[in-house]
Order: sequence, then C-alpha cells, then structure tokens
Amino acid sequence: MLHLIGLGLSDPTDVTVKGLEIIKKCKRVYLEAYTSILMAASTESLEEFYGCKVLLADRELVESGSEEILEGADKDCDVAFLVVGDPFGATTHTDLVLRAREKNIEVNIVHNASVMNAVGCTGLQLYNFGQTVSMVFFTETWRPDSFYDKIKENRRIGLHTLVLLDIKVKEQTLQNLLRGNDIYEPPRFMSIEQAAEQLIEVQENRKEKNYEADTPCIAVSRLGSPRQVIRAGTLKEMAEYESGEPLHSLIILGHRIHDLESDYFMQWAFNKDTLKKSLEDDQKYTYE
Amino acid sequence: MLHLIGLGLSDPTDVTVKGLEIIKKCKRVYLEAYTSILMAASTESLEEFYGCKVLLADRELVESGSEEILEGADKDCDVAFLVVGDPFGATTHTDLVLRAREKNIEVNIVHNASVMNAVGCTGLQLYNFGQTVSMVFFTETWRPDSFYDKIKENRRIGLHTLVLLDIKVKEQTLQNLLRGNDIYEPPRFMSIEQAAEQLIEVQENRKEKNYEADTPCIAVSRLGSPRQVIRAGTLKEMAEYESGEPLHSLIILGHRIHDLESDYFMQWAFNKDTLKKSLEDDQKYTYE
Repeated sequence: MLHLIGLGLSDPTDVTVKGLEIIKKCKRVYLEAYTSILMAASTESLEEFYGCKVLLADRELVESGSEEILEGADKDCDVAFLVVGDPFGATTHTDLVLRAREKNIEVNIVHNASVMNAVGCTGLQLYNFGQTVSMVFFTETWRPDSFYDKIKENRRIGLHTLVLLDIKVKEQTLQNLLRGNDIYEPPRFMSIEQAAEQLIEVQENRKEKNYEADTPCIAVSRLGSPRQVIRAGTLKEMAEYESGEPLHSLIILGHRIHDLESDYFMQWAFNKDTLKKSLEDDQKYTYE
Repeated sequence: MLHLIGLGLSDPTDVTVKGLEIIKKCKRVYLEAYTSILMAASTESLEEFYGCKVLLADRELVESGSEEILEGADKDCDVAFLVVGDPFGATTHTDLVLRAREKNIEVNIVHNASVMNAVGCTGLQLYNFGQTVSMVFFTETWRPDSFYDKIKENRRIGLHTLVLLDIKVKEQTLQNLLRGNDIYEPPRFMSIEQAAEQLIEVQENRKEKNYEADTPCIAVSRLGSPRQVIRAGTLKEMAEYESGEPLHSLIILGHRIHDLESDYFMQWAFNKDTLKKSLEDDQKYTYE
C-alpha cells in the first residue's frame, strides 16, 4: 500500500499518532522535499524520531521517477510518502495517487494541518477567504502578475486572500543546468517584505485600485512553530517589515470583515490607531 | 496555560504526537462536543487512549461558562480544550482565546486537519475554492438562503464552493426548553440528499441560474475515516443519493476547473458519460 502522510507544519511531533504508527511499519519512507520544508526538523531528526531511514524525494523523483517510489508496493509492502502540511494542501499529489491506482496499488491518506487551514489562528474566519494565490520571485525578465486578477475577484466580493510565498529548493543556475553540473543554489524563501513590494509594484503598474498601499494585511511567519509571529498592518508597512526566518504567508484582507475578526485582528497591529483607520477606510471602499 | 488542540477528523489516533503529549500532562481536559463529532471515537475510547478523564463542553459551558474552563489555568496548571478538526477550522474558538488573554493566561494552539483542507483529497485544488458556506436544516418557518448569494459569487468567478452541512447536537424542543426540562433530542446530521434538495428548492425560488439541477457536485462522506466515500454527480443525482452514516459535506463545482482536477474527479462519478456532459456544459456557461 502507498501511504500519503501529512506531517503538519513545524516539528517532528506534528505528525499524527496514526501517521507515525504507519511510518514505523513501512519498508521505505520518502519525504517530499521540494515544495515546502518542515520548519523545526532536519532529515536526521525525523530519522531519529521515526526510527528508520528517510529518503529525500526531489521534484525529479516524484514527477518522472515515481516508478522507484511505487516499486514493490502491495498488500505486504507499505511505502510512505511524507508531505509537509497535508498531502492535498497547497501542493496536491493527485498525480502520484493516479499512477499508484493504475498499478492497482491501494492508496491511504493521512491528513494533517496545512497552511490553508492553520491561518485560521489569525482570527480571520476560513469561511471568509476567497481563492488562494501564489506569488513567485520576480526576475529581471519574468514578473508574472496573474495573482492580481484573483485578488481583485476576491476583494470585489469582500473576501480575504491568502498569498502563498515562493520557495526555491534545489534550484540550478542556467549555466550549471546547461553544463549538466550537479550544483544547486542555496534554498531561498520569499520574505513578507519582498511579497509586499511585488504586490505594490503590480498594483502601480495596473493603475487600478483593487488594493492599495493602505490596504490592511496580516503577515504570518513560521506558522505552527514555537517561533510563530503574526503581525497586522498596511501593505506599505509590510513592505518595510523584517519578518525574519521562513516560512511566511501574507493575507490581504477583504472588506466584508466581521467585528469578531477585526477585534481579534487588532491585537497583531504594528500601530493600532493607523490600522483602525485603514480598516475603516477599506470597509467603505466600493469597487466599480 | 490553555491548550487548544485539534483532534483531526475521525479516530482517536488522528491527534498529533505533540497534542497527545500535552493532553497527558493536563490537569483538566475538555472536549468541545457541540459543533462536530469525532466520527470513529466515543468519549470512553478517548479517555482510554489519553489515560485521563475527558469533560464534555457543550455550547453553554463554552459560551457562558468559560470561567470554569479557564479556572486555575496558569504556568503550573495546563488545561486542554480539544476541538474536532482544527481549533480554528469551521468553528473558530477565538472567543475563548480572547477571554484567556484577558486573564493573562497563555494560550498554545496545536493544529490539525479540518474539513476545510482535507477536502483536497477529492482532487479539487484548494486554490480553486471560493468562500465556504453553511447550510442549516430548513424548518416550516425558517428557510434561510443566504448561502445562495455566496455560491453565486463563487460560481460567477468559476470557483468551487464547499458546503458544510448542519449538525444538531444536544438540541431541545421548544416545549422542553420552555418547561425547563433537561431533555434533549437525539443528534441529527444533514445528509447529502437533504442538502441537495434544499439547494434545488432555493435555486427554483430565486428563478436565477447560478447553479442548476445539472451542475456537477462532489459528495464527501465520512471524510478522513476508514469508511470515507467520495462520489461525483449532478446536484439532481445528489438529491437521490443515499449517503449513509454522517458526517457529510457537499462541493458545488466551479467552471474554472483544471484538466488535472476533472481527470481525478471523474473517478468518483455515478455515471461517467452523463457527468462528463454536465461538466462540459457547465464550463461553457457564462453568467450575465
């Protein structure tokens, strides 16, 4: 059987008891190591905690080499594929499930928290979120801004937007790629500051006002870890905020915010007075 | 310290290792027992698994009697408040957190899977969901339909809608309530069939076409439990579907469905041919 097991957000102990029991009986244990990281755990600490070897699965192995992962998995041989967060959270692994089903390998899912639901701890109700968007690192030549239209759709009906920030793990420079060098760049994680700057840049280019520098936001850093920090402020304040170690997510508020949400929200404010003003102004805003 | 601990979706072993370790050291352990149920666990099985007494917290205790829950909680006295799913999932417990903070009681959150992220196992991407709606049991005199406008907003921008179905636990008849009798009705859980019927009724009353009897849907029954069943069909088919034991959720698809999503989606079809047709028709639909 193939087991897709969510590891939750931060520590080795964020795995469920059910998940841990399964991992311990698996013949092979893979850790999906290219779309996210478990913030407070190394591969070694996971191996110690599980009492078994953990094989790192990079994008290439998962997307082209799933044969290796699925090899020999049957009713007498359990294989675990560990995913940070939930197996169907921000990155879905439906592809691997479909390939397993083609080979008549039974698939078992063990769910866990993901950023998509754990952001509820900001006090914003998950009911009031619209579609989630991703923001990639802008380069000189590649500055994709399709997130803008999605934020616009959410904002126009008053909903919050969760913005997931880019992570680059095991990336190669073009030079190393072309030369076939097995050299990888150090991992990069987008900061709140950079995400806010990119959001402001695109908003200015679009010359529309679907959100503005004064729009209220929440920065969620190291969600679910002992070093979690939540701060609330305007987008402009976020562009100057030193958010520290990864991982980070940013939420752009919608104007249909409930009193219970805003009461809770104010406790994270950089500056309560100015934020209250921005929040009130934003609620009055109507989109034509 | 007050610990809000998510229990996940179904079994006692769905708690995280971190959550279980905390529960074991708490002086008092409350289980929030009025907004959801842990499908494959009784209070007794939880007590046996945790090795401690579990106190049931009904709505009255949480909303009016939080003094009792918070009583004596400090740095030397840990109190656990267990929540099915995630503590900030479908029902948020920000109120209890705020009251704890007023008393200078430190609060610790242990996240877990909730229906809000675990529905990703249908193969629909969480990115493509709009706002979540709730559907209550209609009565002779109370048939609230505000969910309709929210589904309309989601559908117009092509997004999926998760519909959470009503649960009635520890409800009293008006007669027993007025007489002050301590008699409670048996728990009730809305079925897929009933939810679909109510959706169709409201759509017919509104005389709009924001969704129709032919709109593709997914029924998710007993999500995360060993008896989980996922089925896909039109809303009309859902109104005739015997979905069995609770809990259930329904998803109304959006037309902006990705090929990867629909490939995965088709495996749950009641009838692949008619569903494929409904899906294609729905994707052509434009809203004026």
